[in-house]
Amino acid sequence: MHILIIGAAGMIGRKLTARLADTCELNGRPIDKITLVDVDTPQRPPNCAAKIETFAADVADPAAAVRAVAGRPHVIFHLAAVVSGEAELDFEKGTRVNLDGSRVLLEAVRKAGEGYRPRLVFTSSIAVFGAPFPAAIADDFHTTPLTSYGTQKAIIELLLADYSRRGFLDGVGIRLPTIVVRPGRPNRAASGFFSSIIREPLNGEEAVLPVADSVRHWYASPRAAVEFLLHAAGLDCEQLAGRVNLTMPGVCCTVGEQIESLRRIAGDKVASRIRREPDPLIARIVAGWPSRFDPRRALALGFRAEASFDEIIHVHIADELGGKIAC
Amino acid sequence: MHILIIGAAGMIGRKLTARLADTCELNGRPIDKITLVDVDTPQRPPNCAAKIETFAADVADPAAAVRAVAGRPHVIFHLAAVVSGEAELDFEKGTRVNLDGSRVLLEAVRKAGEGYRPRLVFTSSIAVFGAPFPAAIADDFHTTPLTSYGTQKAIIELLLADYSRRGFLDGVGIRLPTIVVRPGRPNRAASGFFSSIIREPLNGEEAVLPVADSVRHWYASPRAAVEFLLHAAGLDCEQLAGRVNLTMPGVCCTVGEQIESLRRIAGDKVASRIRREPDPLIARIVAGWPSRFDPRRALALGFRAEASFDEIIHVHIADELGGKIAC
Repeated sequence: MHILIIGAAGMIGRKLTARLADTCELNGRPIDKITLVDVDTPQRPPNCAAKIETFAADVADPAAAVRAVAGRPHVIFHLAAVVSGEAELDFEKGTRVNLDGSRVLLEAVRKAGEGYRPRLVFTSSIAVFGAPFPAAIADDFHTTPLTSYGTQKAIIELLLADYSRRGFLDGVGIRLPTIVVRPGRPNRAASGFFSSIIREPLNGEEAVLPVADSVRHWYASPRAAVEFLLHAAGLDCEQLAGRVNLTMPGVCCTVGEQIESLRRIAGDKVASRIRREPDPLIARIVAGWPSRFDPRRALALGFRAEASFDEIIHVHIADELGGKIAC
Repeated sequence: MHILIIGAAGMIGRKLTARLADTCELNGRPIDKITLVDVDTPQRPPNCAAKIETFAADVADPAAAVRAVAGRPHVIFHLAAVVSGEAELDFEKGTRVNLDGSRVLLEAVRKAGEGYRPRLVFTSSIAVFGAPFPAAIADDFHTTPLTSYGTQKAIIELLLADYSRRGFLDGVGIRLPTIVVRPGRPNRAASGFFSSIIREPLNGEEAVLPVADSVRHWYASPRAAVEFLLHAAGLDCEQLAGRVNLTMPGVCCTVGEQIESLRRIAGDKVASRIRREPDPLIARIVAGWPSRFDPRRALALGFRAEASFDEIIHVHIADELGGKIAC
């Protein structure tokens, strides 16, 4: 089996690569080759039995997309994206990468011909939804994004469904919750503080909280995100009945509840490292985001997230901090 | 006031042009110029006091879009499209015209700069919806089109909303019901028979009905479509609260009820000119189409369609047949 990961150098891409390289199998089938593509050449995973190919490419370059699919990978994970904050600040860059970059990939697959029909797993986002919302967002709620990022993701969802319907590929779009706790340094996503307020205090550092404690949101861990991707790659597409884009399960809680989880797990001293510094711009952006879903289809199809925010923090401590907390 | 109509040579475009040229005003404001663009040079309306500019253009050509908006029209009606049947048969043509052709127009407006922010009325379609459906489709039902045409329309709806949100233009997308009774010859839309079974019998000719009498659908007349466009051009966009795409009101009835209307109005002899000849391909396409809506937002915003299918037939007889029926 040959796997292609576009956006392999990002946070989720690296975790997915490590997992595939470690097990060298995907849903029970052995992997013989992994192709890793990103703007900067992705790192090669160490000690992997499969053949590894890596290259750097501008994902909006049609020639790069043709090169990426030339080896006719069986499964393509398309993770490459300009994040929400950056796509909002730089409309043209967001359009070029998130919209046109995804289109050139779809087109490269379509034009490969000779019956080529790979599984294409696309990471969409709950940013395809925009306020006002019902109490819980059902699977048939409309997508009215309030960011250019969400707009670009919603457009690729539509194309993914149409390309699948026409038999050009077997697409599955998974709308990721906000992924917390992200390791490493903040990226330019407006949602960055959701991770910072857990990560930095656990690391002995201060974190800034730009919104009210009452803000409610929808979360899953990086580990859950990788599991979503692997599960999507193995789905029987017949089960999707043409509706290939799925809202992933997650944990619904408020920022205040996040902080209480942190306090329970790591103590008052750690939780006290969160400094409240309201930022009206971020508060306004976040107010347009969804906070609670009723993701019945994904649950029925076997997708699973954490059951509580405590569990999400424990995953972070286990996967990123070697199981230890700096108090 | 300067009006631009892209797709001015189509059926709706010609009726809209005639109406604007006749009254020389739009929602109470005088019109001093009308620019008409289509693949073939649109006909100039006779005896119009406003200045008329016409030109032929490939709507997917960015230079043509730049030329079309160079005069900074106050209101743009974007009607140009490859119809559903053709977009399904020729994926690349549908994509080029319906998706990329609309994008180049949006981009030409965005890049015009200097505070240019026209009203852009985009004709979308109920084809943005795909089965399975609830009993009546509410305004917040998701768009899961089952044709490439519907996909392309849904994508432009998303861009229209984002371009409006960012202040590049003031968009209003109106999802037209199936427009019946279309005058003239059939086009390549799979929905063509909905008009044929009324138009041809009234014209003394036989019509073929390719689906069952029980098929239910959602209709408005060409006259109502023009009224929708004019009303959309005059809407206060604040009222839309960011959700700029609206399902238009219509008449919900079955093919059997259409035929009974025809019989009531024109008699048994006319109604007997419908020949039943099932076409499984058309039946399959139509089965994926929506049939009943609950278009509360559009009604609250003042959009009005006919109240019955009888009324739709009377509009056809008045507007196309000089008020007379050939028995």
